[in-house]
Amino acid sequence: MTYIAVDIGATNIRVATGDSDGLHVKSIEQTDTRNGAGGVSKQIIRLIEDLTDEKPESIGIGSIGPIDLETGEITNTPNYPFNYIPISQPLEEYFGIKTRLVNDCAAAVLGEQRFGAGKGYSSIVYVTISTGLGGGAIVDNHLLMGKDGNAPEIGHITINSDSDIKCGCGSYGHWEAYASGKNIPRYAMKLIKSSWRKSLIADLIGGDLELLTSKTIYDAAKQGDEVALGVVAEIGRINAVGFANITNVFDPELITVGGSITLNNPRLVLDPIRDNIDKHLINRKPEIMVTPLGEDAVLIGALALAMKA
Amino acid sequence: MTYIAVDIGATNIRVATGDSDGLHVKSIEQTDTRNGAGGVSKQIIRLIEDLTDEKPESIGIGSIGPIDLETGEITNTPNYPFNYIPISQPLEEYFGIKTRLVNDCAAAVLGEQRFGAGKGYSSIVYVTISTGLGGGAIVDNHLLMGKDGNAPEIGHITINSDSDIKCGCGSYGHWEAYASGKNIPRYAMKLIKSSWRKSLIADLIGGDLELLTSKTIYDAAKQGDEVALGVVAEIGRINAVGFANITNVFDPELITVGGSITLNNPRLVLDPIRDNIDKHLINRKPEIMVTPLGEDAVLIGALALAMKA
Repeated sequence: MTYIAVDIGATNIRVATGDSDGLHVKSIEQTDTRNGAGGVSKQIIRLIEDLTDEKPESIGIGSIGPIDLETGEITNTPNYPFNYIPISQPLEEYFGIKTRLVNDCAAAVLGEQRFGAGKGYSSIVYVTISTGLGGGAIVDNHLLMGKDGNAPEIGHITINSDSDIKCGCGSYGHWEAYASGKNIPRYAMKLIKSSWRKSLIADLIGGDLELLTSKTIYDAAKQGDEVALGVVAEIGRINAVGFANITNVFDPELITVGGSITLNNPRLVLDPIRDNIDKHLINRKPEIMVTPLGEDAVLIGALALAMKA
Repeated sequence: MTYIAVDIGATNIRVATGDSDGLHVKSIEQTDTRNGAGGVSKQIIRLIEDLTDEKPESIGIGSIGPIDLETGEITNTPNYPFNYIPISQPLEEYFGIKTRLVNDCAAAVLGEQRFGAGKGYSSIVYVTISTGLGGGAIVDNHLLMGKDGNAPEIGHITINSDSDIKCGCGSYGHWEAYASGKNIPRYAMKLIKSSWRKSLIADLIGGDLELLTSKTIYDAAKQGDEVALGVVAEIGRINAVGFANITNVFDPELITVGGSITLNNPRLVLDPIRDNIDKHLINRKPEIMVTPLGEDAVLIGALALAMKA
C-alpha cells in the first residue's frame, strides 16, 4: 500500500510517497501562485502523478495555517495571495480517496510519534524554531486540535506581560516576539547596541546593523564571539521559559525541536534550554532533543496522518 | 443506578450520591488525619455508607494533588502529613466496584461538560482562582492528563520572565505568584505601599498591613475604594494575560471560572479579564463565564467521572 504525504510550506510544496517503512520518493517545487487559488491543488495532483502510477491509499497533508479543518481549506494565510485555498476536496474528488489536512506542526508531532523519537510515548510536543515559532502536541495519545484546529499557538504565550516588544500578531511580550528567526535580530540589537561594533558580528555584517540576521548571530557564536554568545545565552534563557511553560501546561514525556534555527545550531539552541529550564518547572522535566526527522518532520508527519486516515 | 462522588480538598472531604440528574445527598467532614494514611479511605467508606444503603455503581474522586494515577494514591501532598494516601484500592476492595481518581480541576472540567456550562462543547478549560490557581482542560472531548496526570499546571505558566516575585513552587514570575488568593496580598502590598494609609483598606485592617488579605482588597473594592480598585484592575490585567495564554495553547470554546475569589467577586474578577484579553490573543476568543456549578464544581465533576467509569 502506498500513501501520499504533502507538506505545504510558506514558499514550497513537497510531496512524497511512503508506507510503514517511512518516506520513499520525494519531490519539491515552489508553490504555483499564478493560476489562482485552484492552481495549488492542481499542482499537488500533478506532483503526485509524477511520483507514482499506483492509486494511493490515502493522502495526508501538513500545511501552513490558518486552516479550516471542516472545509479542508487554507484560509487567509499571509504567505499566499488567496483568501481560501481549497485542498482536501479537489484531491478527494480527483483521486477518490480519503484526504486529511492538519496544521504543519500537528503533522510533525504525529510524525515524531510514529517514525521519530516519540515511538512508545503518549505525550509529546514538537517545537519548531524557524522564521516563526510554533508547536504541535499529543497528550495521552490525543493530537490537540482545539475549536479551530490550528494546533497549540505556543509561540504566542505571553512570557513578559510588561514587555514593549511587539509580536508579528500585534501583541506584546509573546515568546515568538523574542525568539523566532525573524525576531531574534531585533531583540539582539537591543541587547548589543553598545557592544556589537567591537565584535565579530560587525565584520560579518560589514558594519551595517540593518543586515543583522539570526544566522549572523549564530555563526559568530559558533566562532566563539563573546557578544554573539551573550545573545545566544539570552535567547536560550527565554527559550527555557517557553519550554518550561510547555512542560507545565502539557506535561509531556518528550519535547522534540526542529526548524532551521535549531537544525543549524543544535547545541547553541538546546544547551541553554537544558541549563535553565529547571528553575521554571513544576511538572517533571521531559526529555528534550533535536528531532531526528530534520527538515522532513512535516512531510513524515503528513505520511503518519495519511496512514491514520 | 446510584453513583458516588468524592471531593478530597485541602481540609475537608465531601461525599455525595448522584445520577444523571446530578447530585442527590451530600455530606462534608474535616479530613481525619489522626488515624494514619489509611484513616482517610476508612473515613470515605463511612461517609458513603452513611449516605446510602444501595450498592453504588462506581465511585469518582476529585482530589488535591499530586496524585498517582496508576496506584490511585495521593502522593506527597503539602496539605496532609502522609507521603502516600491510598484511595482507589481500599475503596475498590471494600465495595467491589470501579473507582476512578483524578486531580480536582480535571474532575471539575468533566463536571462542567456534563452538568454545567460546557454541555455540547468539546474544548473547555475550567480555572479555579482560590488559595491557589489551577485548571483542568478538555480538548476535542479529551480530558488532558499528561505523563503524571496532574492536569495542566496553568498557574505555573511564567508570565514575567524577569520577575522577582516568587511562586510557592520556588520559581519566579508564575501567574499564580501574582494572582492566587494566597499571593494577591503580597503583590498588592508592592502596588499600594505609598497609598494604602489613605484608603478604606487601612480601616479594614486596623492599620496593620500584615493583616491584609485578598478578601480585604475585594471588600474595599466593592465599596468603591480607589486604591483597592487599582489593585483589582492590576490583578485583572495579569489574569487577562493568563486567560489569553490558556486560549492560545488550548484553543477552547469556553473557559469557566470558579474558586472562592471568583465566586465571591464575580464581576471584579471577570470584567477586567474580558476588558483586557483581546490584546494578547492570537486564537479566537472563547466564551468566559463564572461556573454555574459554584462550590460543587469538583464534587459534580467527581460524579461525572463516576458515570464515565
